[in-house]
Amino acid sequence: MRSFEVKNRTSVDEIKSLRLITALKTPYLPDGRFDLEAYDALMHMQVLSGAEGVIVGGTTGEGQLMSWDEHIMLIGHTVNCFGGLIKVIGNTGSNSTREAIHATEQGFAVGMHAALHINPYYGKTSMEGMVAHFEAVLPMGPTIIYNVPSRTGQDIPPPVIHTVMQSANMAGVKECVGNNRIKEYTDKGIVAWSGNDDQCHDARWGHGATGVVSVASNLVPGLMRELMFEGKNSSLNAKLMPLIEWLFHEPNPVGLNTALAQLGVVRPVFRLPYVPLPLARRVEFLNIVKELGRENFVGDKDVQVLDDDDFGLVGRY
Amino acid sequence: MRSFEVKNRTSVDEIKSLRLITALKTPYLPDGRFDLEAYDALMHMQVLSGAEGVIVGGTTGEGQLMSWDEHIMLIGHTVNCFGGLIKVIGNTGSNSTREAIHATEQGFAVGMHAALHINPYYGKTSMEGMVAHFEAVLPMGPTIIYNVPSRTGQDIPPPVIHTVMQSANMAGVKECVGNNRIKEYTDKGIVAWSGNDDQCHDARWGHGATGVVSVASNLVPGLMRELMFEGKNSSLNAKLMPLIEWLFHEPNPVGLNTALAQLGVVRPVFRLPYVPLPLARRVEFLNIVKELGRENFVGDKDVQVLDDDDFGLVGRY
Amino acid sequence: MRSFEVKNRTSVDEIKSLRLITALKTPYLPDGRFDLEAYDALMHMQVLSGAEGVIVGGTTGEGQLMSWDEHIMLIGHTVNCFGGLIKVIGNTGSNSTREAIHATEQGFAVGMHAALHINPYYGKTSMEGMVAHFEAVLPMGPTIIYNVPSRTGQDIPPPVIHTVMQSANMAGVKECVGNNRIKEYTDKGIVAWSGNDDQCHDARWGHGATGVVSVASNLVPGLMRELMFEGKNSSLNAKLMPLIEWLFHEPNPVGLNTALAQLGVVRPVFRLPYVPLPLARRVEFLNIVKELGRENFVGDKDVQVLDDDDFGLVGRY
Amino acid sequence: MRSFEVKNRTSVDEIKSLRLITALKTPYLPDGRFDLEAYDALMHMQVLSGAEGVIVGGTTGEGQLMSWDEHIMLIGHTVNCFGGLIKVIGNTGSNSTREAIHATEQGFAVGMHAALHINPYYGKTSMEGMVAHFEAVLPMGPTIIYNVPSRTGQDIPPPVIHTVMQSANMAGVKECVGNNRIKEYTDKGIVAWSGNDDQCHDARWGHGATGVVSVASNLVPGLMRELMFEGKNSSLNAKLMPLIEWLFHEPNPVGLNTALAQLGVVRPVFRLPYVPLPLARRVEFLNIVKELGRENFVGDKDVQVLDDDDFGLVGRY
Repeated sequence: MRSFEVKNRTSVDEIKSLRLITALKTPYLPDGRFDLEAYDALMHMQVLSGAEGVIVGGTTGEGQLMSWDEHIMLIGHTVNCFGGLIKVIGNTGSNSTREAIHATEQGFAVGMHAALHINPYYGKTSMEGMVAHFEAVLPMGPTIIYNVPSRTGQDIPPPVIHTVMQSANMAGVKECVGNNRIKEYTDKGIVAWSGNDDQCHDARWGHGATGVVSVASNLVPGLMRELMFEGKNSSLNAKLMPLIEWLFHEPNPVGLNTALAQLGVVRPVFRLPYVPLPLARRVEFLNIVKELGRENFVGDKDVQVLDDDDFGLVGRY
Repeated sequence: MRSFEVKNRTSVDEIKSLRLITALKTPYLPDGRFDLEAYDALMHMQVLSGAEGVIVGGTTGEGQLMSWDEHIMLIGHTVNCFGGLIKVIGNTGSNSTREAIHATEQGFAVGMHAALHINPYYGKTSMEGMVAHFEAVLPMGPTIIYNVPSRTGQDIPPPVIHTVMQSANMAGVKECVGNNRIKEYTDKGIVAWSGNDDQCHDARWGHGATGVVSVASNLVPGLMRELMFEGKNSSLNAKLMPLIEWLFHEPNPVGLNTALAQLGVVRPVFRLPYVPLPLARRVEFLNIVKELGRENFVGDKDVQVLDDDDFGLVGRY
Repeated sequence: MRSFEVKNRTSVDEIKSLRLITALKTPYLPDGRFDLEAYDALMHMQVLSGAEGVIVGGTTGEGQLMSWDEHIMLIGHTVNCFGGLIKVIGNTGSNSTREAIHATEQGFAVGMHAALHINPYYGKTSMEGMVAHFEAVLPMGPTIIYNVPSRTGQDIPPPVIHTVMQSANMAGVKECVGNNRIKEYTDKGIVAWSGNDDQCHDARWGHGATGVVSVASNLVPGLMRELMFEGKNSSLNAKLMPLIEWLFHEPNPVGLNTALAQLGVVRPVFRLPYVPLPLARRVEFLNIVKELGRENFVGDKDVQVLDDDDFGLVGRY
Repeated sequence: MRSFEVKNRTSVDEIKSLRLITALKTPYLPDGRFDLEAYDALMHMQVLSGAEGVIVGGTTGEGQLMSWDEHIMLIGHTVNCFGGLIKVIGNTGSNSTREAIHATEQGFAVGMHAALHINPYYGKTSMEGMVAHFEAVLPMGPTIIYNVPSRTGQDIPPPVIHTVMQSANMAGVKECVGNNRIKEYTDKGIVAWSGNDDQCHDARWGHGATGVVSVASNLVPGLMRELMFEGKNSSLNAKLMPLIEWLFHEPNPVGLNTALAQLGVVRPVFRLPYVPLPLARRVEFLNIVKELGRENFVGDKDVQVLDDDDFGLVGRY
């Protein structure tokens, strides 16, 4: 079910060269549906600040809380409105091969430039099964494989990557295991992105990584751009560390969601099972913003500490 | 859940002025999934022949046999690849208000230029219910309402149209009841399209219709363009009549599906409950093509009579 | 995907003998989800009053407003709680053959005793297509075919019924075209139920119908039982006529929904596109109840006239 | 959306007392749909061998590869056919709170006796989020919480369990972290089941566990029954160990699926991303069967070594 229209063709090389990819936050209306106006605003911020790609519906964007039709719709929307300005990478991965096939086919049909694929988390499988899973979707278009054992419960070991690299569609690996693993890949000419904001500076400048798939760039895209483009900069990297540490006290995107709400760029609406960071952390965020400079963060409202009552949590949507 | 990006804004006036809108056929692969390559080819034929709009997933395009995610995906695909060349009208109507709301929201989010809405067929409702149904979706964007009592079991009477015309998003009516009804509307300044190929010439040139939503233009888009743009032409209209009669011996799109397969522009694959026309009719089609001239039909292969065995019928897909 | 467990086997003869089948109303919570407590209460009323079967999710039960998972869940619930007391007939028909196949397979898997199938409404097809549609689902279990051209836009002509009667699973026809058609079937030994409350007495006692699939029996199950079981009774039939006429002033189930809410047995919640009958009709209903006797109606609260404000209409659910 | 019919009420105490619960395999037809005949046969084997409960659509049963409508249908089917003989526990957990709510509501509506719930795997969340997730579903009926950090990437720590134990619906914990954790719970009166076949004997007889949720009991239900009911039996436990080790060389259910196919009780059909164990392991299985005795395994055909070609792998279904 492939289309070969110009708008449906992206070269793998274009994907391989991206240095700053933002794992974009998905904002919500009070009833839990997507807040497309806020989403579009976030997209403009990314484009203006120099991000070159976005992951739509990643774990940061809470793809795991979307129905597939919502997810594909959001990819299609992003392609249509912003696809000429930025690369749109749809997280059409799944632990179900059927779902990954279906979503990836649809994602490419609506014009996404690349797919992000995960190994079968939770259900898990054998190495042979993992390879079969990836091979079922690789023929469909440019692909990034995402390795994050702390979420999936299972490492994608290098031999699996080496096997799937035989596909011309393989762009590279978003790797969270660490910079030694990244070096192992880049030494062999395999493109790798760091999936960890705290390691991405060293990954980029010391271990051969092409760039980062970043959470922090939702907040400070300009600084993350600088970090990935302007050469080694340990001082900037150090300056960012308190923000990055703050972001990951709880599993992502708990911190990010809280931060964006306090910056006034998204409504303070959470889809369960995510809930805001506690008050003490919310207060800390103000200091972090002050230290780094409000002007480096997205949005133009004063950052504020939200009350518990300001947040809406939705379970049915 | 609205987006106000440029790509998500279409003026109602742009929709009101369309003269030739094709209710596009959806072609299938042997396993029943969409054949996007064939679909793209059909789209190019429409664009090149001068159609100004397409209905995606209308009754002709078998929207009733699609899952909503397929349907929205196809709208998104069409917008992305062809939205700069032609207006994309998504048939996001349903007899379930919930489904119409959900699909219309999604259709506009992926960039469709207008929605086609139907009154609640089969389930039916009161006039008050019909108005409430349309009012639930009208705020979302430019809208055409489709009246086809022979399918829905229930006429949309003029008072309902007059009520919903109060919405600035109402572009007009695709009317199948006949040319007197069309005149009743156009006399009052309400835009109307004929939904009947056999009446559209008179509708356009004698009853004030803006144009046609056509089935025949899948086959002879150039001639239908001429019929709608080049002034009264009873001779061309008469010349088209045998084709149009042939097309509607059985409920549409049975004839259209058969014809396109025999022209070699789509695979001979039917999603049930549609089955090909019987052999005798398939033979007749060759004469019709000969009479009108093969060059006026889409595709460039020789038209052929397919055998029963050439067709694939799929029930699970 | 068949199960041959005892609980998944119903003989066609058991279905053929049912005289009173109620097309059951589906009641809702204020947010539009099913109100299972009210549903269970309605089911008990049917069982106690002598109904022998229920249609779950028919047009009366607003199957057209359900997602398939809701629909199958409701069938499964009904089978589990009441399947030993009454025959559960799931309306797993659709105008999409794929959906009819999927739903019917699932309906029988959760234990429904028979399927109700409709010809492809709205989309329509040729006679050959109609037969192919029914033949795709007939092997799955006992089946009633439902003919209601005023909803579907297309009659199921007797030759189609004769063709599909070759399946051992065909129980018979729910026929709304009229009593002459019913006689045509019953004369040939084909089981038929009247689908029209106003004609069912004559159908049963004068035209060979086995019984009725009734809307009115939601309200007065005991009287409908009497009408179908106790022999010709023109006086009872005449007595029921004002209620039946009142019920069908607007397309069913608009009247039924209004009546049950005023009887206090369901919440006054409507899923769009259904809206309550206007006030004048709501007042009339009180007189009808008074004439027939409150004790003949379901529920034990005083019947009341509800205000416009008492009703909730839900479009998203 | 609760039903309070007798068939929809199960006491938490009934769940708390179950000693042998089988995490049932879901067998497939060659096209990937459920093989209900094989499923029913497996269910009978469980009932006859003395299992007291089954998990439907657990990770073993590949709930992660089901659509929710398939999953709920399978629960409804199991309840209807076997619910009087064995407790049916539906794995209606999800990492999406919305999906967990929806599925659990539906599962109880079709009569499941208890729900199995997992913490949000892959997406993960904070402890507060985890509690909110469980509290969203606990009011619906008897509940077992499942802790398996090797799959979810995140431990459910005892304080979370203590918090949710305040719900009267909490039956207990299926715990895979180990027997010390189990003892920590059982010392405080919290019911726990071992989720590890290799530890369940000691858990049951030495650490206060009520019983086991077993994978091995798909194969040797009688022996697992003996292990859980007949008192401490280190010799039987040791005898079972080679089978259990063999089963878990690869992530479950890879081994189980292979074993059941070779025993001839299910078709050799795998839904991807699961693939059969390699030939060497398949040969080993014969020796294991021989050692333990074919008569202790389910089915009555000779166990055989299947060829690679005997297996079907399905990605679209």
